[in-house]
Amino acid sequence: MKDEALSSLYTPALVVDLDKVKRNVQNMTERYEKLGVQLRPHMKTHKTLECADIMTGGTRRCIVVSTLAEASFYADHGFDDILYAYPLPFDKVEHCAALSERLDLFQVLLDHPDALEELKKRPLKDGRQWHVWLKLDCGNGRAGVLYSDPGTLKLALAIAQADGVELTGVYAHCGNTYKCKGVEQIQAVAQETTNLTLQFMEKLKDAGVTCKSSIGSTPSCSHPVKDMAQLSEVHPGNYVFYDVQQSLIGSCSLEDVAVKVLTRVISHAPHRNQLLVDCGWTGLSLDGAGTLPTGYAVIEGHTDLKLVSMTQEHGRMEPISGPLDYSKYPLGTMLTLIPYHSCATAAMHSVYHVYSEGHLVGKWLPTRGW
Amino acid sequence: MKDEALSSLYTPALVVDLDKVKRNVQNMTERYEKLGVQLRPHMKTHKTLECADIMTGGTRRCIVVSTLAEASFYADHGFDDILYAYPLPFDKVEHCAALSERLDLFQVLLDHPDALEELKKRPLKDGRQWHVWLKLDCGNGRAGVLYSDPGTLKLALAIAQADGVELTGVYAHCGNTYKCKGVEQIQAVAQETTNLTLQFMEKLKDAGVTCKSSIGSTPSCSHPVKDMAQLSEVHPGNYVFYDVQQSLIGSCSLEDVAVKVLTRVISHAPHRNQLLVDCGWTGLSLDGAGTLPTGYAVIEGHTDLKLVSMTQEHGRMEPISGPLDYSKYPLGTMLTLIPYHSCATAAMHSVYHVYSEGHLVGKWLPTRGW
Repeated sequence: MKDEALSSLYTPALVVDLDKVKRNVQNMTERYEKLGVQLRPHMKTHKTLECADIMTGGTRRCIVVSTLAEASFYADHGFDDILYAYPLPFDKVEHCAALSERLDLFQVLLDHPDALEELKKRPLKDGRQWHVWLKLDCGNGRAGVLYSDPGTLKLALAIAQADGVELTGVYAHCGNTYKCKGVEQIQAVAQETTNLTLQFMEKLKDAGVTCKSSIGSTPSCSHPVKDMAQLSEVHPGNYVFYDVQQSLIGSCSLEDVAVKVLTRVISHAPHRNQLLVDCGWTGLSLDGAGTLPTGYAVIEGHTDLKLVSMTQEHGRMEPISGPLDYSKYPLGTMLTLIPYHSCATAAMHSVYHVYSEGHLVGKWLPTRGW
Repeated sequence: MKDEALSSLYTPALVVDLDKVKRNVQNMTERYEKLGVQLRPHMKTHKTLECADIMTGGTRRCIVVSTLAEASFYADHGFDDILYAYPLPFDKVEHCAALSERLDLFQVLLDHPDALEELKKRPLKDGRQWHVWLKLDCGNGRAGVLYSDPGTLKLALAIAQADGVELTGVYAHCGNTYKCKGVEQIQAVAQETTNLTLQFMEKLKDAGVTCKSSIGSTPSCSHPVKDMAQLSEVHPGNYVFYDVQQSLIGSCSLEDVAVKVLTRVISHAPHRNQLLVDCGWTGLSLDGAGTLPTGYAVIEGHTDLKLVSMTQEHGRMEPISGPLDYSKYPLGTMLTLIPYHSCATAAMHSVYHVYSEGHLVGKWLPTRGW
């Protein structure tokens, strides 16, 4: 990163390339316009108003969020048609009810019969319905009822038939794409998740119930298979920033990554053949566990350097091989870290510094908490 | 944790046991009063005003910080005698100068001749001196000039002799205590670091220079060796909260840990013999890499459970052996996580919920950023 403007920033600093963000969003948006599938972008990666505006094309409609804090933040700023895609947390039912009664379309998600009972205990006012998505586990291994379990269809029908509750859709997250390498493997998982979801939709239809269907994950949505055209929606999120992990999976190229962490050399440790930089795990997530050939991040323009370890405010870098040429890295030298996982690294920062064509153009302030 | 008041909190939530904080602080304070050594507590673990008041006994004097943001935050709230114990970052020299000109005693740290040159380029106004600590690497392997390097004494003398600059002290962090198991090993490292620091002080004295000396780390300061009485100061920080890591090292017992993360069961995954909880790596740091027998945390009162993995907002728990008895963990059940590393987990939270004797007594708001 050569931009002069960025050299004015205190480091560590999270910087966002606005032009890459816009390009990533445009590519994803056009992809699903062509496929005729509604794109419902996930906000969890950035949690900012500005980026949500870009992702929704300014409509402020049709988003997914991962926390109730995000839901409230976006609702307070005029967003609507919000899907809180998280197994209904029992402590937050009343707050969800308030959002359901206030917005045109606030949607929740569940994957357990007890959660349906919890909703039924709190009927919405003014004849409103709870809009409920059923979370399906199609092999991802996180939340969701298993697609093949007979209880799953039973739960879907119970949602559809409950008073004051509507089955809005079936939601699957193909997070197992994160274990893929390359487009072929990604598309195999996308195909499998799509098949399983569509088969479940058929079972529902046979039982007389129709509703929406949605699958997500940035890898699968970056390389959709044709059958995804039969889904109602997709819900990727990370694509707005991408990251090293996504480039290794094959979702994007390293050039597409729109978020970086700037750091500076603060010390030399010739007795250990190391540099110290001012970015520790408060500035860059430990996610990835340092397993990249270059450690915890890719160091832009310095493929011979490895970020070998981090403590709270210190990062230790050393050459991948050979002695370090300290004359190349005087104290104060700025280095650019491309993060392994942008969601996790963005979560460490309370300010994102946004730049375009070599100029700082603003600061984005994410919401935090739950 | 049985306290009824805590059940009102949205989860995940970071909670602080005020009584344990006070006890941990009292023990450390009394320990160094007896030893006749100045305790300069480090703020990096909590970064709050309230906790700083407890650690300084309300004097608001004599603290260490890890970021300039902390330094400014504390200075803005009437704290003074602040040591910014971080290798002088060249982007922040002007800000350090402003603090040096405004406070009675703002102190910086360096470990490279170029950093001294940088200070000399910015003489302080009104005849003020830069107060500089030299960072010594006594085997910790992070920042600092190596104790045995001939250039180290030379740098110390250069600081002492420079116009407008004063050598305030020699600072070593015995972070290598973090590899210890048990008091004996901790004290061996404490003894070694103390010896190396005091030997360096002798060399300085022989060269006609006297200044302060300080070593730190919560393990060594929890179990000081007698010779530490010859130091001017100690600078531990983590002891205010302690954590699972410290209990494994032998700094404290698990009962002393003053900070926990509350989480709730949000889903059952019988097809994987797992529970899902609402705490992922935005609520609990990945530090420790899940290597505890109980995974990423100790689950209070449930020694048979393991937090095996986390994503952004989900944690997966399973029994250490055998099938999970789901009837013991209905949806909404609150569980208490004792964090592996309290500094890292506190850094994930923008609010700490403070309780005492079963009652919530306040919220602490930490400062963040750099």
